[in-house]
Amino acid sequence: MRALNYQDHGLVLERDYPRPTPVEGEALIRVTQAGICNTDLEIVQGYMGFHGVLGHEFVGVVEEIYGEITLDQYNALYGKRVVGEINAACNRYTCYYCRNGMPTHCPQRTTLGIDKRDGAFADYVQLPIENLHVVPDTVSDDEAIFVEPLAANFEILEQVHLRPTETVLVLGDGKMGQLAAQVLALNGEKVIMVGKHKEKLALASQQGINTCLLTDPETFASPFGRRADVVIECTGSEQGLQMALRLVRPRGTVILKSTVAATSNLHLAPIVIDEIRVQGSRCGPFPPALQALKRKMVNVKPLISARYSFDQALEAFEHAKQPGTLKVVLTM
Amino acid sequence: MRALNYQDHGLVLERDYPRPTPVEGEALIRVTQAGICNTDLEIVQGYMGFHGVLGHEFVGVVEEIYGEITLDQYNALYGKRVVGEINAACNRYTCYYCRNGMPTHCPQRTTLGIDKRDGAFADYVQLPIENLHVVPDTVSDDEAIFVEPLAANFEILEQVHLRPTETVLVLGDGKMGQLAAQVLALNGEKVIMVGKHKEKLALASQQGINTCLLTDPETFASPFGRRADVVIECTGSEQGLQMALRLVRPRGTVILKSTVAATSNLHLAPIVIDEIRVQGSRCGPFPPALQALKRKMVNVKPLISARYSFDQALEAFEHAKQPGTLKVVLTM
Ligand SMILES: [Zn+2]
Ligand SMILES: [Zn+2]
Ligand SMILES: [Zn+2]
Ligand SMILES: [Zn+2]
Repeated sequence: MRALNYQDHGLVLERDYPRPTPVEGEALIRVTQAGICNTDLEIVQGYMGFHGVLGHEFVGVVEEIYGEITLDQYNALYGKRVVGEINAACNRYTCYYCRNGMPTHCPQRTTLGIDKRDGAFADYVQLPIENLHVVPDTVSDDEAIFVEPLAANFEILEQVHLRPTETVLVLGDGKMGQLAAQVLALNGEKVIMVGKHKEKLALASQQGINTCLLTDPETFASPFGRRADVVIECTGSEQGLQMALRLVRPRGTVILKSTVAATSNLHLAPIVIDEIRVQGSRCGPFPPALQALKRKMVNVKPLISARYSFDQALEAFEHAKQPGTLKVVLTM
Repeated sequence: MRALNYQDHGLVLERDYPRPTPVEGEALIRVTQAGICNTDLEIVQGYMGFHGVLGHEFVGVVEEIYGEITLDQYNALYGKRVVGEINAACNRYTCYYCRNGMPTHCPQRTTLGIDKRDGAFADYVQLPIENLHVVPDTVSDDEAIFVEPLAANFEILEQVHLRPTETVLVLGDGKMGQLAAQVLALNGEKVIMVGKHKEKLALASQQGINTCLLTDPETFASPFGRRADVVIECTGSEQGLQMALRLVRPRGTVILKSTVAATSNLHLAPIVIDEIRVQGSRCGPFPPALQALKRKMVNVKPLISARYSFDQALEAFEHAKQPGTLKVVLTM
């Protein structure tokens, strides 16, 4: 099969990559469409130490299911259009994380296209059946590839109680910020995106999101007059956390989404003095993301910047790296 | 009056420092005893930019009350032995923080011996009457000076729901760690203090606290086998937060108490990957601290390393700076 393989010598579009080997309890999915994520770009720059097939945002059709499953399970999945949660946990009773409802933190986990598991930039991908979610007919493939990053923003609502009257600043107008703003505005009135790019802010604005141009980060003050109750750090820049700490109010919350933002030499004393909660946030639940798409509560299609056939995957990656690009889609 | 005054040229024990001037709604307190805190040592090293009379851990007797108050208020305080919360807020209806139950974060606040308000290392100190708490007769002066730092540890319980079955690591065996361990062990079974000093761990051990010697920080693993649910960072060292992030479990909580621990060049990606909550924590509520002392639920007296008369305050400071010293007490 075709597969976009990242190895020491770089990214290679293989023609004869072996199909995933059958594993009990897993399903083979024929990928129909996939999206390039910033994490993919980071892996290609060697950040995560992963080697193998990239890709974790996808939609596809279940073609095989391995192992003993019930007829109900079979009927629920076979031939169905699905999206898949990217962390495959051990599911053992002896595992503290699996037993306590935290499979995304299972120490034995593999992660699709990110850690110890080949990803979805390939003709076929394989995942445990419990990771799969059937996509409603009214949700298109273009929309379905956003389920994974949308879910990562619903994770914020799993972690923190955001009250509808609270002021929420989404710091960053890229892919992550655009999705965060749409998810958080579902029940929040005072969600505002702060970004550097007029076109991207305009895109959010068209979705009914309040926006504010970040001119000089040094002198920028909260558009609310006072500092925000919650700041979502989606800048993907090393200065992001520092700035978030300046914009959040005492006893407020900073949601830290990007690992890049967390590597710089920070002065963190404000966390103590202002009693800030800094909450790291990663993968999230698929069902609310699927429902939001089904009910048309979020609009992700305007975030697609470009579309490539899989045979042009290398060009697609080059495109995705260009500043100002939002989602680049690969169609099989 | 006598006062320990910190100015550009250093710490001076003044003999004729002016008494605090009367302010409506404030009380004049004759200080009887006070404790030297690490914050005092930091101020003397120029860290906080404060100039004036130091001291924020004290007990004293109310000698004057200024302004119009009710007879009940007068009777409740006049001539009484009191301790005092250190943040004096604006209490205005127009202040978001005062109106929303967060006076310790009032932007207009002054802080006793730390920020814009002369402190308690003096014969007299002045504070708003709403900051004062009468000390029960069964709580000695030696115990009362610990109310402020004890309250700062009850603040942790105000911020985070610590379940009795959770494993809590107190990282650090100094003054802060000793008090944190005692407070958190009130309703937690698996509280363990991790420290570098055998004598200090023994002190905690005598109070029924589980302890564990930190040998090599690089290879140190949680004494629970798995990583802890909560880590209280009380090391006062720049490496403290980094180590706390290694010892806390995915989805766990790190309580950040010391500003020093928050200044180094950290790799914070684990916060995102493990979805850690880093919770800054500062001043806390006095009533539960007073009650814990009254009910003999905590034992602070063994933490007193030395006692000096106020006329020896400069020597007392030198003593407090010595490694291995716990609380140094000033008696007026
Ligand atoms: Zn991604
Ligand atoms: Zn597991
Ligand atoms: Zn203190
Ligand atoms: Zn105020």
